[in-house]
Parts: sequence; C-alpha cells; structure tokens
Amino acid sequence: ALIDGILVGTEEGLQAAQVYDARERWIVPGWIDAHVHIESSMMTPENFEEAVLKRGTTTAICDPHELANVAGTQGIAYFLEAATQLHLNLQVMLSSCVPSTNAQMETNFTEISSKDLELFKNHPQALGLAEMMNIPGVLHNDPEVLRKLVQFSLRPIDGHCPFVSGKKLAAYTLSGISSCHESSQLQEASEKLSQGMAIWIREGSVAKDLKTLMPLLRLETTGSIGFCTDDRNPLDILTEGHVDHLVRTSIQSGIPPEWVFRSASWTPAQHYGLHRGVRRIGALAPGYAADFVVLRDVPTCEIAEVFKSGQRTQDLNPLSLKDQAGRFENSVHITLPETQDLRGPEGLVHTIGVWEGKIITEHRIRRSQDPGIAHLSVLERYGHGFPPSNGYVEGFGLELNGAIASSVGHDSHNLIAVGSNPEDMRVAFGCLANLGGGFCVVQKGTVLAQLALPIGGLMSHQPASVITTSLRHLKAASLQIGCVLQEPFLQLAFLSLPVIPSLKLTDRGLVDVENFQFINVQA
Amino acid sequence: ALIDGILVGTEEGLQAAQVYDARERWIVPGWIDAHVHIESSMMTPENFEEAVLKRGTTTAICDPHELANVAGTQGIAYFLEAATQLHLNLQVMLSSCVPSTNAQMETNFTEISSKDLELFKNHPQALGLAEMMNIPGVLHNDPEVLRKLVQFSLRPIDGHCPFVSGKKLAAYTLSGISSCHESSQLQEASEKLSQGMAIWIREGSVAKDLKTLMPLLRLETTGSIGFCTDDRNPLDILTEGHVDHLVRTSIQSGIPPEWVFRSASWTPAQHYGLHRGVRRIGALAPGYAADFVVLRDVPTCEIAEVFKSGQRTQDLNPLSLKDQAGRFENSVHITLPETQDLRGPEGLVHTIGVWEGKIITEHRIRRSQDPGIAHLSVLERYGHGFPPSNGYVEGFGLELNGAIASSVGHDSHNLIAVGSNPEDMRVAFGCLANLGGGFCVVQKGTVLAQLALPIGGLMSHQPASVITTSLRHLKAASLQIGCVLQEPFLQLAFLSLPVIPSLKLTDRGLVDVENFQFINVQA
Repeated sequence: ALIDGILVGTEEGLQAAQVYDARERWIVPGWIDAHVHIESSMMTPENFEEAVLKRGTTTAICDPHELANVAGTQGIAYFLEAATQLHLNLQVMLSSCVPSTNAQMETNFTEISSKDLELFKNHPQALGLAEMMNIPGVLHNDPEVLRKLVQFSLRPIDGHCPFVSGKKLAAYTLSGISSCHESSQLQEASEKLSQGMAIWIREGSVAKDLKTLMPLLRLETTGSIGFCTDDRNPLDILTEGHVDHLVRTSIQSGIPPEWVFRSASWTPAQHYGLHRGVRRIGALAPGYAADFVVLRDVPTCEIAEVFKSGQRTQDLNPLSLKDQAGRFENSVHITLPETQDLRGPEGLVHTIGVWEGKIITEHRIRRSQDPGIAHLSVLERYGHGFPPSNGYVEGFGLELNGAIASSVGHDSHNLIAVGSNPEDMRVAFGCLANLGGGFCVVQKGTVLAQLALPIGGLMSHQPASVITTSLRHLKAASLQIGCVLQEPFLQLAFLSLPVIPSLKLTDRGLVDVENFQFINVQA
Repeated sequence: ALIDGILVGTEEGLQAAQVYDARERWIVPGWIDAHVHIESSMMTPENFEEAVLKRGTTTAICDPHELANVAGTQGIAYFLEAATQLHLNLQVMLSSCVPSTNAQMETNFTEISSKDLELFKNHPQALGLAEMMNIPGVLHNDPEVLRKLVQFSLRPIDGHCPFVSGKKLAAYTLSGISSCHESSQLQEASEKLSQGMAIWIREGSVAKDLKTLMPLLRLETTGSIGFCTDDRNPLDILTEGHVDHLVRTSIQSGIPPEWVFRSASWTPAQHYGLHRGVRRIGALAPGYAADFVVLRDVPTCEIAEVFKSGQRTQDLNPLSLKDQAGRFENSVHITLPETQDLRGPEGLVHTIGVWEGKIITEHRIRRSQDPGIAHLSVLERYGHGFPPSNGYVEGFGLELNGAIASSVGHDSHNLIAVGSNPEDMRVAFGCLANLGGGFCVVQKGTVLAQLALPIGGLMSHQPASVITTSLRHLKAASLQIGCVLQEPFLQLAFLSLPVIPSLKLTDRGLVDVENFQFINVQA
C-alpha cells in the first residue's frame, strides 16, 4: 500500500482507493546505477530519465565530471539543479578530479578545487565525493587531494583504482575511499573486496566487466557488490538495456535472483546511506519510497511496469525543466592545425595498443609505417590555440582508410582523432568545430556521417532514439572506412584519459600512466 | 600492520618495528554491543570498560536513559563526556523517552524534550536517537515524539517495539525507526526483519532471547542481525561474559563462525554508519581502527588477547577520568510511608504475573490472599512526598517470607519493593533511603543483605568483582527468604516499566500497557 509515493504497508488485506493488479507478477525494489556519467549517454538528464526509468533504474548515482571538465563548477551545478527537478532519484557525487590528474598533464576548462566543492557540499542532492582517480595524488599525499578526502571523510567517497593492489591498494583504501567500479579481473575485484571496498560491477558500452566478475557475486558478498553502467551510450541503453541488462544477464547466468536484486538495490542504498530519511530506498518496506519494478517473470526479467514514487512511469507528470543546457553551447574553440602539424615523429614509436571492449590500453613499440598503425591526434579545444599532440595507435584495423574524430575525449574532452592520414583527420577536426562538438567519420575529405553534441561537446538535446539513429550511421560509416572496433567512438574517447593504464595521449603529449609521466613518442 | 591504532595493511610480508606473534590464532574484528544501558551493569563507564573490553567488546552503543531519568540532561552529558575519554569506543544514542512514556504515567526527575536533545545532537560521540519506546506516541502522532523523529531522520533511530506487528509495526517503522532489540519470539523478529528493521538479538540478565532467535541468523540475514546486552549485570558479565557470550553460544550452537563474527561487528557498524571516518570499525581492513580480538581457537571462542586502537588491553594507559559521578549522589528523596500505607486493596485483584527470565509480564486476576500472591509497592523518590502505589505480583515464590527492594526501577527509578508483608517492605524502603539507593533483602525487620548504588541510585563506584560479591550475597538472601527467581532484582526492576507488556505498576498506579491506561487494582 502506498500513500504520497511512500510504501506504508506490505501485509495482506490492506485496502486502497485505487488498486493496481499485479497478480502473477513480481515486484522488486527499483534498481540503482551505483556509478554513472550521464554525459556518456549523450543525453540531457531529462532525456536520460526518459530512457532509463522505464527500464527500472529508479536511482542513479552520477558523477558530473565530464561537463565539469568542460564548464567548471557550472557543470556540477547543472546536474545538482536537474537532480532537484527530475522524477528519477538522481544523487550527485561531487567530482574529485577535474582535470583527471593535474593541469600539467592535460588542458581542460579549469581546475576544480576543494574550495569549489565546499560550495556544493551541503546541497540536498550532493551525496559524497566522486571517483578519486588521482591515485598518485592519494599515494603521495598531494595536499589538495588530501583536503578533498578529509572534507568528505564522513560521507561516501568513491574510488577508481584499476589494477591497484597490495600495499598501494592498502594505502588507497586507508584514505577512506570505499568503492571501486574499475575492476576488470576477478582476482583484482576479490582483493578489493577483502580490503573492505564495495565493488560496483560495470557494464558500460566499452568496459564490460560483468561476465568476468559475476563469479564474485555470492550470497556472502551481495552486501558489498552492486551494479553500475559508468559510460553507456543510448544505443546500448535502447537495445540491451541499462541496469536491467546487468540484472537480467546475471539471473540468466544462473545467479539466484534474490542475490541479484539485493545487489541492484539494497547494497548501494546502504553503502551510500540512502536507506535513511523520508525518501529512503533499497527495500520494499514501510517508509521506503515506492520505487519498484513490476516483472512479468523473474527468469526473463521482462518488465511489465516501473513505479517511481508510487506512480507508473507512463503516468508521471511531464517534466517541465527549463532547458538549462543552452549555457554550455559553443564551447569548442580550436585553432585548426595544418595537415603537416598532425604528423607524429616517424620510425620506432611508442604506440597505444587498443583491445576491443577494454578502456585499458597496452604500451607497445611499433614502426610508424607498419600495417595497422594509425595516426592519433589530440587537439586542445579551450581556446588557447595550443598545437595538437600527435602519436600512434594500433587496433582500429589493418584496412583503416579515413578518419574518425570525437569531441568526447575523457576527461578533459579535447578533440581526438584517429586516422590513416592527417588530411582526413584535419577535415574531421574542422567538422567537429563546425558542429560545436560531436562525432564524425571522414574519408577522402568527405564527411560520411556526423552527430552534433552541442552541449559542452558532450551531449545532445535529442532523445535516445534520435541519437541512436545517428550512432548507427556513424557505426556504419566507421565500418565502411575499415575500422574493426564495435565502439570506435567510445574507445577513441578513452585514449586521452591518463588515469587508466597503460599508455594514453593527452593534448600535452604521450603519457606513461604506470609511471605517471610524459614520454617521447619516438622510441 | 598497524600505525597509530589504525590498520594499514593485511597482506603478507609486511615489516614492523614491533611484532606480535599470533601464529595459530584467529583474529576477528572487535565486537559491538549494539544496544546497552551501562547503568544496568551498575558500574561507572570506566569500570564497565574494565569489565567488557578484555572480553572483546571494543564498541558499545549506549543509551543513558536510566541516569537521564534520574538526573535529566546531566545524565546524558555524563556519558557523552565519558565517551570522549574512554579507551572503549562508546557511542551515545540520545535518550528519546525520558520518562519512558509521559509525566502523567510515572514520576521521574524531569522530562527531556526535543529541545534538550538539540544541545547534544552535534556532540562527536552522539550517534542518533535511542530506543523509541513511546509506541502510542509514534502511532498517534504525538507532536513531541514526531519532533524527535524528524530531528534525527537522517541519523540512526533505534526502536523498541515488543510484540508490535501488522499495521502497527508498519506505522512504527514508517516513522524512520530502523532497529529493534525487543523481539522475544522468532516470528516476531522475522516480521520486523521483513519490514526493513535490523534485529539486535539480546542476551541480558533477565531478558534472554538468543536461544529463541538464533534460527533467524542465516547467511542471508547476517547483514541485518546484530547482538546486544541491553541490561546485563556484572555477575553475568564476569561469569558468562558480555557480547563474547552471545558470539560463543551462537558458534557452539552450530551457526557458522563467519556469520556470527559478521553480526557481531560489520552489521552494527554499517547500520550505525560507523564504517566511515578516521576511526571506522566493523572490519579488519586498511583504514579501520585496530580493534580486534585474538582467539585461541574458534569453536571455544577462547580469548587470548584483545587489542583496542592497536594496543593490547593490558597495555592501555590507565584511565585518569576525574570521577564525574559524585554529582549524582544523594539522589533518593522519599517520605517513608507507614506500614498500612503499603497495603493494596484486598479481594479480587489485577495481578502482575512474572515469568522467570522475561521482562514481559502477564495480566492476571487473582485473590489477594491466594498463595504466591505478594505485595508490590512503588515509592516516588524525587522528593515530592507522593504516597506509594500498591498492587500485587505473582511469581516470586509460594514461600516468600520477607521483602526485596530496589532503587533501580526502570525507567523512572522510583523505589520498588516486593514482599510477603508490608512491615518488611517498609524496612526495605528505609534501608534503600539510607544507602542513597541500592538493593536489599529484609526478613522480620532485619536487613539480610544490601548493596549501595549511590550514583543516582543506579550505579556503584566499585568494580565488577566487588559488586558481584554483594550480588551473590543478595541472591543467597533472596533464596533464603523463599524467592524462586534467579534474578529477583532485575525482574523487580522491570515491574515498573510501563512500555513493556502487559501489566506494570508505576509510582502513580497500575498500568494496563496494552491499552496504555491506568486501571484499578481491585478487579
């Protein structure tokens, strides 16, 4: 029984003014995305809600660090503001690493300090400190990193520590960081669990860890394991699903449904302290928000309906958010380089090795003229007029002929292009600048497909279905020019993120992530 | 490995300046008493620490409502102050019900309001709101009760709802109350669990629920079940143990040790939010306080040593607390009644039926002259000079000959005496007044045994061993006068608590707890 969006009783024989007949159906607590960058859905918060709420995601713990890199504190304020207006229970973790490391390593709009975070700390939708990606900063006591950790020591602090283990992991968790969604190996996740961390199993559009980590999900661990999507594009949300995809896949793989449902709701609710207060979540019990999923049956996890705050999603009042995103338009300011400025040094070169479906890269040494070695350039887009940084990448395909470019380039979101030749890369950069940000595929000087992402160069005003159509065209075009990756744009977008091993290219140069330093492209 | 009382690593091969050899031993996180009234140990906080820390209780969540009934906010301030000085991790839940119900139902020192609690809310050792015993107040929206619930809505709020179920339980949990330690039946505890509450299994000196509730402790429930002692006297602490007794008994009854250890540490730590911050507890992982128990082996749970904040309990610096308890002396102010004023009405009478080992009583109708029916009187001790309230009780023994009296009379702590004749009861009241509070056994006008509890009439300055000797004498004397109960003083002490079903006697009269109203003694 529900009153005003709150569950007030679950015992038999209760009477109500209005009855919803759920006979022969299953009702489970609404699902929680324990860590998501909404910007990676390329949708505004309202369109994101439209896409995921009906799929059972009633709560999302977001980190607005993409927009924060592009627009500073305004980016955080935008999501906090949206969170107060959405039907979706949107909780904002305050971005801890903007830029992801430090201003010497990459150029972004501006640095966000502990002082800046103080402005937002007491906002009702601000939950804690978002993923602490600056691992060297934690391990070597960077004063500003420590200030942020102390500032949030009594609140949840999310981690991000791929492959960190042993003493380094001990030092990292010691600092109060209590979750990680970056485990890609079973042993890795298991060690983090044993060190007291919560593990969020991620199934993004590129990084897909569910299959690998699923064996960790046992009755004794469900209290410390949750699900997240991190970076998931609208195509995958529309076709495979959102958190429901993780839930369904887990159940269909043989994990007992009760454990899966607990991991999808109770566990992250407890971890983030959302099991208290007037809109508490994570269970179906008196006083909890009436956020739940009605399933036709459990094995298929087919969703009949989703209720948010006691209302069926289709009956919710339409959102009347003022479009606050306009302020983030016209944010891409480049100086278009000449073709010859997009060439890296030749000969024996440090090369980024890309694996299908992984955001982790391999540090390889290759000859620049070898088959399958493509040009990679990152171009600063914050109006400083910096020259591009150029390098090489392997894994986009032996037959690549043309260029692929993106204004989504984690986390600083400088423009990034991969290509068989600098001419097409130059055209692609020009195309992105004209779009105000987005994706494009270029061959022989012609733009084959494009998608405008005018909001900070990250997001569209369009709903999932429209963006998805463009993404299909882009995928087809990328296939046409010989790219072999399933998600070329997402894989490209992570090649400039210097907090994910092993070798990355920022607008300032080639970064050896393990040693956290720049290296020459020439080997 | 430990530094400054904090665990910094658990992996192999770490080196340290000082090594403690725990080969062939087991190390488990320190145990948490999830709900305790330290006053019921009759010891000051420092003596309580001395008794329980070496038994593995490294954290206690206390509710100082006994002293708060006797001394108002000063009683709460005393425990908060002690909490900042003890080695023991003492967390104080702020007493929600002082007096237990309302000032019409019983006389105490003073009422503690939501405004009073505001003074303590931000004290670093103040954790949340203590057991909400005023069930009618919650169910019928008493404004002051609601104010307290709202005041602590984002903090832990403990429950106390014996036998509450169905719609009433739904309404009670709806209010944000999230735990209960008052379940005495399996089905009762199971229902509360299903309504989202944490269940603290209690093993006090009178109320013993472990054996009954143990079947509820399963792998899927350990995350919501913890242990507590509530009211446990020093004799039981010294002989059976404290939380270690619950842990040991559970393991020896066949519950897998991993589940038991989780319930004794991780679960209450998570529930109360003590898994965050610089002194976090509940696990053995980097960043957690080095509070742990070294066991010689698991099946016997024999304790080799206990470490608190990285130090063996025997190496801890001696506490140098100023004795702050002096201010609570000379707190018993009665007008000694005449013998005839201690007689209840005769004939058919509403009689309190007592069961061995239960604080719940039965509402019986008996003849006042029947065998086994004893006199029961409660005498106001706050200097108002109110006359005693008189009634009848059954269960202390058919052969009772003499009187037993106590200044511990939950929660208002008026004097309470049971006896075969008013003459001995009068002598007993006089004895308590002279002692400044305590226990005594009287026969034929002679005091056979006594214990002074000068601190608020509740606590002694003596350590556990000394109090225990007196308690043994008192037990022997009580046996000598024909009392058949194992814990006559503790059972007596609960006969005036009008928030535990079914029939109770306060200084104002006989309370039908089910209907929450006074009734005549005469039936």
